[in-house]
Order: sequence, then structure tokens, then C-alpha cells
Amino acid sequence: MPKVTLREMGLRDGLQSVATIVATEAKIEWIRAAYEAGEREIEVGSFVPPRLMPQLADTAEVLAFAQTLPGLRASVLVPNMKGAERAMECNAELMLLPLSASHAHSLANLRKTPDEVIAEFARIRAERDAAGAATLLEGGIGTAFGCTIQGRVEPDEVLRCLQGLLDAGADRVSIADTVGYADPHAVRVLFERARRIAGERFWCGHFHDTRGLALANVCAALDTGVTRFDATLGGIGGCPHAPGASGNAASEDLVFMLERMGWRTGIDIERLLALRADLAQWLDGEPLHGTLWRAGLPKTHGQPPSTDTNPA
Amino acid sequence: MPKVTLREMGLRDGLQSVATIVATEAKIEWIRAAYEAGEREIEVGSFVPPRLMPQLADTAEVLAFAQTLPGLRASVLVPNMKGAERAMECNAELMLLPLSASHAHSLANLRKTPDEVIAEFARIRAERDAAGAATLLEGGIGTAFGCTIQGRVEPDEVLRCLQGLLDAGADRVSIADTVGYADPHAVRVLFERARRIAGERFWCGHFHDTRGLALANVCAALDTGVTRFDATLGGIGGCPHAPGASGNAASEDLVFMLERMGWRTGIDIERLLALRADLAQWLDGEPLHGTLWRAGLPKTHGQPPSTDTNPA
Repeated sequence: MPKVTLREMGLRDGLQSVATIVATEAKIEWIRAAYEAGEREIEVGSFVPPRLMPQLADTAEVLAFAQTLPGLRASVLVPNMKGAERAMECNAELMLLPLSASHAHSLANLRKTPDEVIAEFARIRAERDAAGAATLLEGGIGTAFGCTIQGRVEPDEVLRCLQGLLDAGADRVSIADTVGYADPHAVRVLFERARRIAGERFWCGHFHDTRGLALANVCAALDTGVTRFDATLGGIGGCPHAPGASGNAASEDLVFMLERMGWRTGIDIERLLALRADLAQWLDGEPLHGTLWRAGLPKTHGQPPSTDTNPA
Repeated sequence: MPKVTLREMGLRDGLQSVATIVATEAKIEWIRAAYEAGEREIEVGSFVPPRLMPQLADTAEVLAFAQTLPGLRASVLVPNMKGAERAMECNAELMLLPLSASHAHSLANLRKTPDEVIAEFARIRAERDAAGAATLLEGGIGTAFGCTIQGRVEPDEVLRCLQGLLDAGADRVSIADTVGYADPHAVRVLFERARRIAGERFWCGHFHDTRGLALANVCAALDTGVTRFDATLGGIGGCPHAPGASGNAASEDLVFMLERMGWRTGIDIERLLALRADLAQWLDGEPLHGTLWRAGLPKTHGQPPSTDTNPA
């Protein structure tokens, strides 16, 4: 059966936009339960200054736990060289450096232009090579379908940044609809072009559900051959510019859709739904999203798909 | 630009599962505003006994108003010959007779087997021809992707029912995922087969968002050439077997997605969002669904799509 990989982003992209500080013990429990449910790729935190993001101040400790689980790929976000040095010291398997294809968003959030981020990326790659570190380096292009500050973001500019990251030595590149501006047609067109440029180094699609299109966008991306997607348990995370709006694609909804379609994720949805209930407790009062949890699994859950063709 | 038609089902499929009785004046205001927003196909009610569905007891009056709006196609649901006779007396342009592909669901809800419904359908067609009435006859196949009572529903059985309806004289057939069991791969496979059988008589896809997949399912259906979809304003309606679950595809979310993709619906989303706010008042206390209304339209709304290809 064809395989799709979910990368759980709840502990980083989710928690970074949640005010509640989740205890380290709960994060460890989250990772353990997600692993037992079958997840094998988890972004565990971010090496940013703790005063900026106290929710993620325990990233090194959480990462150390994740590294005890056999076969789990634990990644971290790094905003700059300093974060990258920490990730390499901690032997993270992969570090993700974000770049915003929107010039205005990049200046507002990172105080750098996209080209300055690419230059930093190249310095990090050089430092890694000099240190002989094994940490893989991923460039994640955000606001790739539009931006709440600048509005339109041209696909040509996204692909220019993608080429820049590859030239700067990215092991992997990914594309993110940070603010829920993407639609399935735009995804198909941009992802096809990105695949032609980056081939197997085009690693992952990242969709927010701000306007309800995350799962439809995943389907469009699947048609272009991309088979790895970011998501967050309970759909947490989301957009500071749209308070109350839903966040990332919900991991449990994504796994449900993929498995129904005949893709294999290796993830047990029932365990994921149980973990979602734990998360609701850890985040007491914070809004969770997603749809499946309300109606529950259908009566036909666990039966083979009604079609005998496979979707790949 | 390629065109997709939305058929508004809120006044029938929505209101039939809502306890609140919406006043006839409000229904008329709803139809007027939807028409002004650009909608041209609206199912206005159902000719069922008023004691069974008091919410829809004013269907004849509502239909009479809809018929005053130039170019508006107003349809009604009819459960049987008696309902069909009423629809023809009222000169409805189209009547929709539901058939459940799930044998168990059909017996539980209609007290008839699918084949008995097909036989009734043939009698209605004969009666229409004898009367020389102009009312078009659509067969709508529900529980086409599974059923909360029976579980699995085989695609072959759905297509057998489809062929039966066509043989019985259906002017149109449509396929509905009544309980939110469909997924994009199953939709693509079934809709491709249905299109091969029914051609242009395959009229419409109808998806519920019970498990968050309605819009992804619409995209899969679009790939098979179907370009007409049922939806309800605010996503009202839904499944009595899953209380609290979301209902139909939300009209405003569907229009948003299609327009972003480069399809033309002829519908003004901002007017639709304003009408949704009116509906929330008319249904005081009832849950509305959908996603777009929370975050609002993106900054790039109204600009041409970022891709210069069209999706058809």
C-alpha cells in the first residue's frame, strides 16, 4: 500500500501560539503516546530565546527524551545561527529554518529579507560541514500562498527562494501556507513546479485550516507526488492575525482522511483521538479544532476501502 | 472561465433537521438575498406531510415566491407520488426523489427497499408524462458511501440503483454522502463510474462535512467533470445519528474555495457571509458550521488567482 508520513507539529507550531505553558512531563507523555500511536516524525520544539517563547524553553530536555525512542525522527525549529548551534550540540536529527516568501512578513517577523535568511542558511550549512555534525538542514518557506501583511505573494518569488535554499545547501525544503490563503488549484500548480526544481528534496507540505481548506489542499499536494505533511493534534496553532480562527490541519482528521483513501500512515487513529482528549486537558480552556472528534469514527472504520484501486 | 453551480439546500436539507421553525417571511427574505447574491438554484422545501415536518409546511408558499424571481431554478423534495403530485400542481421546475442505496437505511427511513423506490419513481415519471407536466424529475441516491445503520454500501449497488433510476426515466441523478463517510479517493472512483453511466444526466454531488472532508470531496468530484454541488448556508443540516456533528458543506466555504481556484460561481461571497449572519439570527441558538466566517476573507480577496492556468 502507498505510504504517507505525518509530521506532528503540535509541540512546536501548536504550542508556540498558545499562552498556556504545558509542563515538560506532559510534553514527554504526549511524545510517548504519539510514538505508541505510530507517529515517527515529531517536531519537539524550537531553539529560540526562552524570554521570547517560554512555552518552548524546555526544548533541549524534550528533545533528549524523544531521542530515546527508537526510529523516531525528532526535529527542532531554529530561527538563526545561534539556534542551529544549539540544535547541533543536542544532536538533533533535523533542524528547520523558516523563511518567509513574503518580503513584508519576513521583515516584520524575522527582521531580515528573504535573501538575508538564505545567506544565514548558507552560513549554517558551512558551520555544520565544518563541525562534521549530522543534523540535517531543512528550509521551510512560509507565507507561500499569500500573507496577511503584504497580501499577494508571487509563485515565482516562492520558487526563487526555494532555489536559493537549495543552492545554499538545504538537505530538504518544504512549503507552508502559514495563514490559510492556499487553495487546491494553487497548491497543485506551485507544488508541481517545486517538485520539478527540488525533486526528492521537496520534503513536506504544511497547511493551515484557517479557511477550511487544509485537507483539500493536502489532496491536491498528494496528486503532485508529495507524501509528507505537517499537522498538529487537535489542529492547535494558527494565526495571530485571525483570533479565533482554526489552526493547522488536525493530525487526527488528516490521518483519518488518508487512511480512508487507502494511504498507509502507520498511525492508530483511536489512540490519536484518545491523546487529543489528554491534550484538551493539558491545554485547559484553549480552543482545539478539527472535525472528526465530534462525530467519531464511522461504522466502517477498520474495513478495507470500498475501492480496490489505490490512490497513488 | 470555467463555471460551477452551487445548489442551495439550506431551506430543505438544512431546515428539515433543525427544530426551530423559521417564519415564511424569513424564508422569503433568505431566498431573495441568496438570489441577489447570485444564487440561481435553490431547493425551497419538501412536500412531506406537515405533521412530520412542520418546519417545511409552507413549502408551496415559499415556492410560489421563488417562482417570481427570473432565472431562479427552484426545486422541491418529494418523498413519494403524493408529494410529486403536489410539486406538479405547483409547477415546480424540478422535483428530487430520494433513494437510499443502503437497504437498511432505506427500510428504516422510507419503509421501502431501493427497488420499491425505483418502482415508485417509474410511476411518478408515467404520471408526469400523462399529465404533460414540465417538472423535471431527479433521483438523488443517498448513503452512497456508507450508512450509519448498515455500515458498508457497495459501489456496485449504488451504480445499480443509478441505472435503475435512469431506466425508470430520471431526467437527472445525483449522488449524496448523507452521513459523511466519503473520502476523496472513493468519490473519484465512484463519480467516474457514475459519469460513464449517466453522462450529462449525472447532475449533482452532495457532501456532508460530518468528518471534515466535504470540500476535499468536492475537489475530487470536480476532477471527474461534475460541476454542480449541493451545500447549505452556514453548513446547517446534518446527521441525526451524530448529534453536535457538522452538517452539509457550507455554501460560503464552498463558494470561497471554488472562486479561489479560478472557478466562477456567479455568487458574491460577501453577500453570502452577510446572509449567514441573518440566518444565525433566524436560527437563534441553533449551531451553524463552516470555517470561513471566523477568519473572514483574505487580503487578496477579489484579486485574480496567482496561477494563470484554469482548473478545468
